[in-house]
Amino acid sequence: MTQAPDPIQAPLGTPVDTLMLVHQVERRAWGEGREGVVLVLGTSAGRIGTAPLWGDRQAWADGLVRGTIVRAAGRLGSFRGVRQLELSGLRIAPPDAAPLRALVPGTTTTAADWTLLDEARRALRQPGLGRVLDLFYDDPSFRTAYQECPASTVGHHARLGGLLQHTVEVVTIGRAVALAAGADRELVLAGALLHDVGKLEAYAWSTGVFELTEAGALLGHIVLGLLMLDRRLARPVPPLCSDRELALLQHLIASHHGNLEHGAPVRPMTLEAEVLHYADDASAKTSSMAEALASPEYFAENGPLSTRSIWQVDHRRIFRGRGEWASVSAVAGEP
Amino acid sequence: MTQAPDPIQAPLGTPVDTLMLVHQVERRAWGEGREGVVLVLGTSAGRIGTAPLWGDRQAWADGLVRGTIVRAAGRLGSFRGVRQLELSGLRIAPPDAAPLRALVPGTTTTAADWTLLDEARRALRQPGLGRVLDLFYDDPSFRTAYQECPASTVGHHARLGGLLQHTVEVVTIGRAVALAAGADRELVLAGALLHDVGKLEAYAWSTGVFELTEAGALLGHIVLGLLMLDRRLARPVPPLCSDRELALLQHLIASHHGNLEHGAPVRPMTLEAEVLHYADDASAKTSSMAEALASPEYFAENGPLSTRSIWQVDHRRIFRGRGEWASVSAVAGEP
Amino acid sequence: MTQAPDPIQAPLGTPVDTLMLVHQVERRAWGEGREGVVLVLGTSAGRIGTAPLWGDRQAWADGLVRGTIVRAAGRLGSFRGVRQLELSGLRIAPPDAAPLRALVPGTTTTAADWTLLDEARRALRQPGLGRVLDLFYDDPSFRTAYQECPASTVGHHARLGGLLQHTVEVVTIGRAVALAAGADRELVLAGALLHDVGKLEAYAWSTGVFELTEAGALLGHIVLGLLMLDRRLARPVPPLCSDRELALLQHLIASHHGNLEHGAPVRPMTLEAEVLHYADDASAKTSSMAEALASPEYFAENGPLSTRSIWQVDHRRIFRGRGEWASVSAVAGEP
Amino acid sequence: MTQAPDPIQAPLGTPVDTLMLVHQVERRAWGEGREGVVLVLGTSAGRIGTAPLWGDRQAWADGLVRGTIVRAAGRLGSFRGVRQLELSGLRIAPPDAAPLRALVPGTTTTAADWTLLDEARRALRQPGLGRVLDLFYDDPSFRTAYQECPASTVGHHARLGGLLQHTVEVVTIGRAVALAAGADRELVLAGALLHDVGKLEAYAWSTGVFELTEAGALLGHIVLGLLMLDRRLARPVPPLCSDRELALLQHLIASHHGNLEHGAPVRPMTLEAEVLHYADDASAKTSSMAEALASPEYFAENGPLSTRSIWQVDHRRIFRGRGEWASVSAVAGEP
Amino acid sequence: MTQAPDPIQAPLGTPVDTLMLVHQVERRAWGEGREGVVLVLGTSAGRIGTAPLWGDRQAWADGLVRGTIVRAAGRLGSFRGVRQLELSGLRIAPPDAAPLRALVPGTTTTAADWTLLDEARRALRQPGLGRVLDLFYDDPSFRTAYQECPASTVGHHARLGGLLQHTVEVVTIGRAVALAAGADRELVLAGALLHDVGKLEAYAWSTGVFELTEAGALLGHIVLGLLMLDRRLARPVPPLCSDRELALLQHLIASHHGNLEHGAPVRPMTLEAEVLHYADDASAKTSSMAEALASPEYFAENGPLSTRSIWQVDHRRIFRGRGEWASVSAVAGEP
Amino acid sequence: MTQAPDPIQAPLGTPVDTLMLVHQVERRAWGEGREGVVLVLGTSAGRIGTAPLWGDRQAWADGLVRGTIVRAAGRLGSFRGVRQLELSGLRIAPPDAAPLRALVPGTTTTAADWTLLDEARRALRQPGLGRVLDLFYDDPSFRTAYQECPASTVGHHARLGGLLQHTVEVVTIGRAVALAAGADRELVLAGALLHDVGKLEAYAWSTGVFELTEAGALLGHIVLGLLMLDRRLARPVPPLCSDRELALLQHLIASHHGNLEHGAPVRPMTLEAEVLHYADDASAKTSSMAEALASPEYFAENGPLSTRSIWQVDHRRIFRGRGEWASVSAVAGEP
Repeated sequence: MTQAPDPIQAPLGTPVDTLMLVHQVERRAWGEGREGVVLVLGTSAGRIGTAPLWGDRQAWADGLVRGTIVRAAGRLGSFRGVRQLELSGLRIAPPDAAPLRALVPGTTTTAADWTLLDEARRALRQPGLGRVLDLFYDDPSFRTAYQECPASTVGHHARLGGLLQHTVEVVTIGRAVALAAGADRELVLAGALLHDVGKLEAYAWSTGVFELTEAGALLGHIVLGLLMLDRRLARPVPPLCSDRELALLQHLIASHHGNLEHGAPVRPMTLEAEVLHYADDASAKTSSMAEALASPEYFAENGPLSTRSIWQVDHRRIFRGRGEWASVSAVAGEP
Repeated sequence: MTQAPDPIQAPLGTPVDTLMLVHQVERRAWGEGREGVVLVLGTSAGRIGTAPLWGDRQAWADGLVRGTIVRAAGRLGSFRGVRQLELSGLRIAPPDAAPLRALVPGTTTTAADWTLLDEARRALRQPGLGRVLDLFYDDPSFRTAYQECPASTVGHHARLGGLLQHTVEVVTIGRAVALAAGADRELVLAGALLHDVGKLEAYAWSTGVFELTEAGALLGHIVLGLLMLDRRLARPVPPLCSDRELALLQHLIASHHGNLEHGAPVRPMTLEAEVLHYADDASAKTSSMAEALASPEYFAENGPLSTRSIWQVDHRRIFRGRGEWASVSAVAGEP
Repeated sequence: MTQAPDPIQAPLGTPVDTLMLVHQVERRAWGEGREGVVLVLGTSAGRIGTAPLWGDRQAWADGLVRGTIVRAAGRLGSFRGVRQLELSGLRIAPPDAAPLRALVPGTTTTAADWTLLDEARRALRQPGLGRVLDLFYDDPSFRTAYQECPASTVGHHARLGGLLQHTVEVVTIGRAVALAAGADRELVLAGALLHDVGKLEAYAWSTGVFELTEAGALLGHIVLGLLMLDRRLARPVPPLCSDRELALLQHLIASHHGNLEHGAPVRPMTLEAEVLHYADDASAKTSSMAEALASPEYFAENGPLSTRSIWQVDHRRIFRGRGEWASVSAVAGEP
Repeated sequence: MTQAPDPIQAPLGTPVDTLMLVHQVERRAWGEGREGVVLVLGTSAGRIGTAPLWGDRQAWADGLVRGTIVRAAGRLGSFRGVRQLELSGLRIAPPDAAPLRALVPGTTTTAADWTLLDEARRALRQPGLGRVLDLFYDDPSFRTAYQECPASTVGHHARLGGLLQHTVEVVTIGRAVALAAGADRELVLAGALLHDVGKLEAYAWSTGVFELTEAGALLGHIVLGLLMLDRRLARPVPPLCSDRELALLQHLIASHHGNLEHGAPVRPMTLEAEVLHYADDASAKTSSMAEALASPEYFAENGPLSTRSIWQVDHRRIFRGRGEWASVSAVAGEP
Repeated sequence: MTQAPDPIQAPLGTPVDTLMLVHQVERRAWGEGREGVVLVLGTSAGRIGTAPLWGDRQAWADGLVRGTIVRAAGRLGSFRGVRQLELSGLRIAPPDAAPLRALVPGTTTTAADWTLLDEARRALRQPGLGRVLDLFYDDPSFRTAYQECPASTVGHHARLGGLLQHTVEVVTIGRAVALAAGADRELVLAGALLHDVGKLEAYAWSTGVFELTEAGALLGHIVLGLLMLDRRLARPVPPLCSDRELALLQHLIASHHGNLEHGAPVRPMTLEAEVLHYADDASAKTSSMAEALASPEYFAENGPLSTRSIWQVDHRRIFRGRGEWASVSAVAGEP
Repeated sequence: MTQAPDPIQAPLGTPVDTLMLVHQVERRAWGEGREGVVLVLGTSAGRIGTAPLWGDRQAWADGLVRGTIVRAAGRLGSFRGVRQLELSGLRIAPPDAAPLRALVPGTTTTAADWTLLDEARRALRQPGLGRVLDLFYDDPSFRTAYQECPASTVGHHARLGGLLQHTVEVVTIGRAVALAAGADRELVLAGALLHDVGKLEAYAWSTGVFELTEAGALLGHIVLGLLMLDRRLARPVPPLCSDRELALLQHLIASHHGNLEHGAPVRPMTLEAEVLHYADDASAKTSSMAEALASPEYFAENGPLSTRSIWQVDHRRIFRGRGEWASVSAVAGEP
């Protein structure tokens, strides 16, 4: 059944028969008494809206809520240049009909990512620092949540496992920057592993819809991360680190957005915090550019220059031509 | 002779007898008819002003200009909390009395830096790209200038060889960011090697005083770099690259400051340009922070918190305490 | 045939039968299986969309691409308050059916404009400066392109010949400002003639659709203008000017946007560059205001106050009432 | 002894003989071998520098550190238009020679302020909310610290007890704004009482010198306040409030600076947080203006218009003339 | 008749038969020749658009202009999620069929508001100041206009009587801030009563449509208020106040927006002007937040967190949950 | 006597004996009981400070106030690189010893300037507009003040007659811009003549010290100009123009700074206001650049590139080299 082409990327006219996730159910009235139901459905490749369900077909939407899994049949059409799914059938599937990653975009490199992070942790020469990280990274429930959590709800790395992927990138880039700057690589590593832990409490993703939690909206992931670290560190007796060491770790979390106007309550004051900020920024911003370059919607005429400005990268237009040079970005085996 | 302690860093009261470079000669009149001469002299560790030369001693300054090498004797004092050199003797030394690097701050890793850059160039899989870089990097006069040029006149890496050091950092960080972002590492490398070539024409440093050239002031190093690339590429027949490839390389230079308000005539539009911008920024900004942390002047009371805000890092205050954790930043042999 | 009223400005209901230029061809699917084709067509007065072509009429669009000239028949209607062309017939016309200016907005004063610029050039007292300008302005292919090029793709003077008109305005205003400021009028004139030459390589307009070229997007017209000047000056032997003179001319181009955040890689550092910047700005901004005041769309209720804010002039609202005073702006014969 | 006029405000030439606090001890060398010691001393009215102590008098400074209490004798002079204390004698006084408020600026209304705050707390209709506030405001050590803490180190209310005074102002203004806006006055009161508690850990003042603590520099008073509330609330079993209620209280602290660029990690999202922000801002900013108007230094010529711009109020110039109208600001007994 | 539920707030499907005000009449053409008329109608609860009137029903719109009162019958529907009124009948009602406040949102507390303002005026101890205020506030035509005028056309307090309500809030908050800041409360009161008088000439509201007048658009309410004060003060002989006193009052009007970028020609330079600015700002901004919290449209899913960002409050998202604590904001009888 | 070289520009060591204006008298105390008096004196070429007057010479300052004319003898010296006048004699001269323009910088082209403005006025085709201008420009006391008033206190055209000179420049540039933009040249002329009339009440200059008046500080020259126009127009019966015409003229004054953040209460909404803004800006900004280029202080080493950034032109560095081209800016007889 899921052998059918994914409706997010298939050509117009393709027939569809696949499991999908319900993101939105909206009952609308059109002029002169016509009423219908419009759904937004998703797969691991993204989301798509349906053509309205008219008349008796509206009953197909009975019982649907955000997060319901459905089996959708129909074909791909478009309306005003926007692709839509024209349904010929729809029925509710059992909740365990498919794993979440089959229905929502996600990463696939979890095991290798964990290996990289865990080896970096084990290589720490300062046992105190390692034990602070262990409070999180040796906790199975933390790991389970962390490897699913997206890195943002609509921005960079907004997919299941995106936070883990972003963390690996920050660790990797942070190591290179720390080397150039002469910063303490162990503190930078600790910062990379701790800087976004607050997103576990700031985001909800279990329904497949990525949203801010109430606490995420009211306090933000930076404050939540500071509180999470504080609460975990309050338990061990004797304490795992001195007050100053705690302040240095908290400072890494508090300042990683770099500037007050980006939501950091303080600007980086240590070399390690400065390094962490640039590693975080480089991962987030170049990832946004890479994602925009991969979106067919910005290159309507298939040329190298995007046909409109792109909000994800501050409304720039972007260019994906390369000349005659062959790209080497996917070449395997390079150090 | 140069075994005497360097007067830039020695304790107050230390006797001085060493070769120094003249940075400034100023004749001043004080109230009630007193006149004197004040000099600014430098060594490889920085600069220092002298106490005024009164009466007959003013003749010591005859014939001095910026760039003269002198042998200065005296002792270290201070005035209003600012350190000064109280001269007891001064005479002009021959122009070849000492190499420039003995008189001006400079880096010491030139050979290793060249090795790293040249091996990266040789590993390029795209011969066309390599030949463009060779136009600069196989040119001995380019190499001679490049390895001396500072990376800025008063900002980050403002020392002899600072541009080469900065380039190595951008190459290293750029490689890590390109890996995370899935960018073409060869283009990023080319951008790292080309982005600041304009500084060779924008800065003058041969007198030991770092200054903007006229062209540097009127056009800036970005425009000068674009013109340098254009002129070198105009010579080979047939041309080394297509028009689009040239535009892509020029775009890397033109956009590497990232934002218009930082002097980029265009913002990055390719993934490689975005990666280069973040690598350049991370190298420059973390280097500024590291330099500020190493300046004793900001930590007047020897505590961990700087006693005033620091203009090099956007007027932040900075912190250099570490708690009990031993720093590992200088540990050798780490990958 | 072209005696029929221009469909861009005629009243609703007017019949249409005229040559038009194809700007856009879009095939759309509406709900419940309906599909159609929508065109955007243009004349010398602007552009208009068509009502969808349904059923067999879709075949009318076969073979149309951007830049095709068509003969369109029908009448003017509107949909949701937006004017549209309801076609009753459409067929492709020969490529030479009409000159570009009959199909795209353009200026009409070319000859007078050339006279003004050429006389100003000939009156230069400094022959060296004149010879630099001659490299461009005595080149017939440059003149042919320059007198067609728009001054922007969607902003001020966005019409065929707009760049020539803008240049004349900058020359005229620049002369008045230079007089007030005591600036060198010859250098200001040179700057006015050179500041936007890069637009010839930054814009494409031959299809009647104004677009950025790849080089225009990647480098911008300022960098392209600098490169064009550099390449033309590289040819003559002996060189037409000294290095400093070249830098002064390049500085006029490089700084004419005035501020880094408007894309100037350097800010004006000479009085002539400052004068040029203000002349350029005054021409561009007051032209935008004049164009907005002439757009009926902003004065829906025919009153003197625009009914909404206008993006071309930074989202201001504008006013076109005059009281009892008769306007003298169109009075002929005034110096 | 302290009957002698306060040297901060007395006219030039006034003899001085009073207890003062040492703020700074600096040993300086002047040109040509002269050395001396300069002190900064303070009283309840502010601070003043001394003329240099030359020769044997330098021994007067032996044993002085920041915070030492001294008995200073001499007269008031000035140097370059800046007032200075010309010492004729100085000796160290016992640490208990005078209470801190006799040596450092401070408020005098502590008891009335506490009454106002405590009555407001007792009038709360929601017992849960009151119990949260009691965790702080029923704690004697909290009260002792709170009534001494300044509201800033160099800005508004920078005096002993300034934080308590600022809190009373925020409570009073917040009540008026809440009434106008229809906000929940009890939550606004809770926010006013909690918003700046972090300053107890962010500021150090016990030596009479107001400084940031390490934690204050690295995390800021907002983050410290969030952590303090979290830690105090972690103790009671069962918890004093629900998770959402805690988030609402934390949100009041986190957002009270109103904008990210002023250091709030989140912007106000509840009506009560919005009200608190405006009350806090109105108290801080009008207090800064009132303090600037009371500084004789800005009205050098005794006219109504300040003779220079004033950094405390964003570099405005200010005006203190009133015309013929008598001021009623000090009229007693008004509600 | 007006017992029927108000169509702005009633549930979908509710039948409607009520007097309404015409805000907009628009004749539109749809594709394939269909034409219709769409109206925007309003009541005291807000505005709503109608479904298009097709065919013969278009005649219902004959004779309608902005400000016409109509009796509208039909039922509430929706189109694309936007509520609309589906008319079954419409006829023009006499101009006196209902008072303006029955047709346009308005406040209801006018008498109490006047009492508060008039008592505050009478309590002034400085008779000269009172007589200046009397020039406006004892003028019956001023009072009639002032109690109807909205405080903005689309922002805070945008309802009949909104200006009077805003004035009362500024008086109340201003009194609290003046008390905290030690400002002259009488001048602050005078400023509160005068600061927005220019809105009487800047806004038109008599048709029930709130609009800028020509003078309001060309000069703004601040300049108009300054001119109104100047003209009223020009009449009495002898003058009611000295030149400086006049300047102080004009300064209160001129500076009340606080910053140049918000349209104040000067920034506050007196303590009273600073106080007035904060009182004005607190009233306007917290009122905007309160109005946004009361808009059902932002809480589509009925949860506590707004489902999208809200332009009225600078694109923040907002939160209206309260936990278990009962709100006391509506408790009567509190001081 | 005044044949002696002007001390502002003469070389160091030059003897001085000339009439000067007292700008400042300051009595200072130096360390160890030394007291002295420092003066700031001025001539038509600028200002200079004196070396301190010690001992009995302090009596020379008895009776001096700002604006006193003195005969000063001595020679030019310098202290810390700042030029100072070392007095050997000083006595008070009679108040009529020299006209103000001999003692304060001023322009010299008054008569030609008036001719240009008066002819432009007389050429107006709309008599109503001319009569409004006559209210000011036919008033002898207005003319007397206008031809002396500086255009700013410390910025552009800050000299006696600077306002008249600036007005002529705005008229001239405005005419060129209006021509290019198709604006009504008569309204632009009216705006140029009225836009800065408020400076007559905003500035005081009769003592030779340029200062803000109280009204100038509290209201600014824009508001004062609006009030001046309003009051003059209130007198004639019947009125000289309609309400809308008055609003259009007031709008020209109110909006001429162009942006709110530069103190315009409204932005330009008419084409004429837009033109006036650019003419005003071009005159003010290019004049500032020209004045900076003429200041020897920025070109310490006599090279073409300023040795430091210059606050008058937004902290740019500037360049005054010209290459081989001869400047034509001073060529006579050009139109």
